[in-house]
Amino acid sequence: MEKTAQLRSAEVIAVGSELLGTTRVDTNSLYLSGRLGSIGIQLRAKSVVGDDRGALADVLRGALDRADLVVLTGGLGPTDDDVTRDAVADALGVPMYEDAAIVERIRARFARRGLQMPEVNRKQALVPRGATVLPNALGSAPGLIIDHGGRLLILLPGPPRELQAMFEPLLEGALKERATGERLYQAALFVVGRSESHVEEIAQPIYSRWREGSAPIETTILAAPGQIELHLSMRSDDPEGAERLLAEARAQLADALGGDVFSFGGTPMESIVGELLDRRNLTITVAESCTGGLLLSRLTDVPGSSKWVLGGIVAYSNASKTLFAGVAASMIDAHGAVSEPVAVALAEGIRARVGSDIGVGITGIAGPSGGTPAKPVGTVAIAVIGPDGPARVRTVWLPGGRTQVKFNATQTALDMVRRNLVAT
Amino acid sequence: MEKTAQLRSAEVIAVGSELLGTTRVDTNSLYLSGRLGSIGIQLRAKSVVGDDRGALADVLRGALDRADLVVLTGGLGPTDDDVTRDAVADALGVPMYEDAAIVERIRARFARRGLQMPEVNRKQALVPRGATVLPNALGSAPGLIIDHGGRLLILLPGPPRELQAMFEPLLEGALKERATGERLYQAALFVVGRSESHVEEIAQPIYSRWREGSAPIETTILAAPGQIELHLSMRSDDPEGAERLLAEARAQLADALGGDVFSFGGTPMESIVGELLDRRNLTITVAESCTGGLLLSRLTDVPGSSKWVLGGIVAYSNASKTLFAGVAASMIDAHGAVSEPVAVALAEGIRARVGSDIGVGITGIAGPSGGTPAKPVGTVAIAVIGPDGPARVRTVWLPGGRTQVKFNATQTALDMVRRNLVAT
Repeated sequence: MEKTAQLRSAEVIAVGSELLGTTRVDTNSLYLSGRLGSIGIQLRAKSVVGDDRGALADVLRGALDRADLVVLTGGLGPTDDDVTRDAVADALGVPMYEDAAIVERIRARFARRGLQMPEVNRKQALVPRGATVLPNALGSAPGLIIDHGGRLLILLPGPPRELQAMFEPLLEGALKERATGERLYQAALFVVGRSESHVEEIAQPIYSRWREGSAPIETTILAAPGQIELHLSMRSDDPEGAERLLAEARAQLADALGGDVFSFGGTPMESIVGELLDRRNLTITVAESCTGGLLLSRLTDVPGSSKWVLGGIVAYSNASKTLFAGVAASMIDAHGAVSEPVAVALAEGIRARVGSDIGVGITGIAGPSGGTPAKPVGTVAIAVIGPDGPARVRTVWLPGGRTQVKFNATQTALDMVRRNLVAT
Repeated sequence: MEKTAQLRSAEVIAVGSELLGTTRVDTNSLYLSGRLGSIGIQLRAKSVVGDDRGALADVLRGALDRADLVVLTGGLGPTDDDVTRDAVADALGVPMYEDAAIVERIRARFARRGLQMPEVNRKQALVPRGATVLPNALGSAPGLIIDHGGRLLILLPGPPRELQAMFEPLLEGALKERATGERLYQAALFVVGRSESHVEEIAQPIYSRWREGSAPIETTILAAPGQIELHLSMRSDDPEGAERLLAEARAQLADALGGDVFSFGGTPMESIVGELLDRRNLTITVAESCTGGLLLSRLTDVPGSSKWVLGGIVAYSNASKTLFAGVAASMIDAHGAVSEPVAVALAEGIRARVGSDIGVGITGIAGPSGGTPAKPVGTVAIAVIGPDGPARVRTVWLPGGRTQVKFNATQTALDMVRRNLVAT
């Protein structure tokens, strides 16, 4: 095998019509992405192609034009719809021959189970000229590795167990030898309370400078439910230098974004709040209406939360607001159930009744019905009281459907608790 | 738009570097595969490409060579790494212009939330020449549809809700007009309370017969959280015949699986329970401990649930079980907080206090700590009382981590309510 050309970029092609339906996804590419990244080879694109020899050869040609390494998974079985070997021979323009050693291995595999090898399995012994065979200890389909003018092509069987057993030794051998030595280094910031475009406006002047630097840092901005994520990455052969530059870039972005940055590590907001409560030995209770238990459920998703969540109520009806949190019926009549006074009364009521350090009250309109011109769907009043000082209360107007409104209202409430705990 | 060429084959390209890592998968293509199949357009291949204008243009050129229809998803945001529009203009070799109507729509969208449109959002108004704009009612990124020499190119935003709202009208309009031939017909059964292998044992003899028929029906069994799904599908040019055969196969499977089949349509369990309550004008309250609000949150995910969910409590601490549901401290001492008597007392207490028709009580150990040899992590006691008769109570031992235990406990509780409502 030539050992000149370095491998920087990869594409993965999963073969199988069953992966094009409505239910199954290709998960082998997730494993391959992580393992390739660990030796500095970046996955640039991935495809799924049905059991169609012509289409597969075509997609493969495109991938070989773009990437240094192409990994094909699946389609190496013995049946008519296993077309990967044929498509590879077509795309490379090389003939195939039957590899006698493979036939013998497959025959022996059947013999061990007291069976005769079906004739169709001979198909699995066909090898494009120039390929090196990768034996399969766990199944009948051998893998193949082919050097094509400095680009590398690897064919692996589809079952994850067989694929991974075959791929791991390559990582230490054929692939590592040709990896560049550069690795991928990453950092991130998680932001709450700003839109994607507002984050972009603040971050763009900073990350553009880093992108133009001699050791460029790439930035991706992602809008996830209730938060905006900035992902920084750079390729480098200098671990210390890379970590230092990434930390510097991240610090500049964090400075510019201020208290809206709630995490560097991707820890969800409920865990951030939980850590703050835990560290200070504080407890929390919640009285929620339109979020219907989601805030309590998110808090109790955190392992160990029984230490700081005392409980709470879901007060969907007006009567239950009065029954469980002592909100006066006259107050609901005067201001409406969705109002800042009622949010405050919910927070104060639940805090006083259960005796927690912090109380949260949420009342709003999750939709799709129930909105009015003055209080459209998505209107949510949120109050937080404690550990010290008077109640803080906000009214927000949240876009999206019912589940988005519910989630974003709980995210805003958690963020208000976080800011209270960071400030005091 | 030309209306001559028929659409038989499609490719989907998902855009976004975040979809090339180790954690996220493109799920939009699953939806698109099913919806395109329903009008006879077959998905032949799909790809994920990072935020790389050159690579995306290249992959797009390949897809346009092979398929009658190419759908691109994502990369339509306002930031620098949103490259889909540019890549499409490159691949088609057409210039872009700024569409004033789109700018106005985005500006108005921000104004409704009391915000000024950031300048970066103007980027979302760039349109390749010849494209028709698809307005986005749910977000700022408009879609585009382009006829390219008889081949159709559709650009959709990445968020599934926005994508689906934009795509559904196309199915009835631009796409249906040009679709042809065989269609994909599908049916499904959703099963609760059985393992995947138990469902397979019962279903396999039935679905094998249908697979061998002259009009073969394919069956896929999927294990989803809290339920097992059977998906049946067949291709046919005879709508009535296909529907009849699928209905017959489904009926045979439903007979064999009995009362464990809770849905044919994929409606989630909380909606099934909500429909049963709504139809009979019954109300429900919940007192939950280890599930921490998740049962109430699932119930309140259902639009219109304020009609039948009166509210409930999350009684995480023992004191809150007594305070909110009147569970006697002596009972907790005698039996332990995780016990059938306490589950029943929670159900009875919340039902009596709020005055609902049905009361649910849940108490258990979600983990990771808190388990004992007698009551390991995953032990959950669940009680349902009402509308008639005495309380029903079960103790289950659920596998998995904290969030799996929480979810499966709520699924079991909902299923107990469902069976109560179906039986009485």
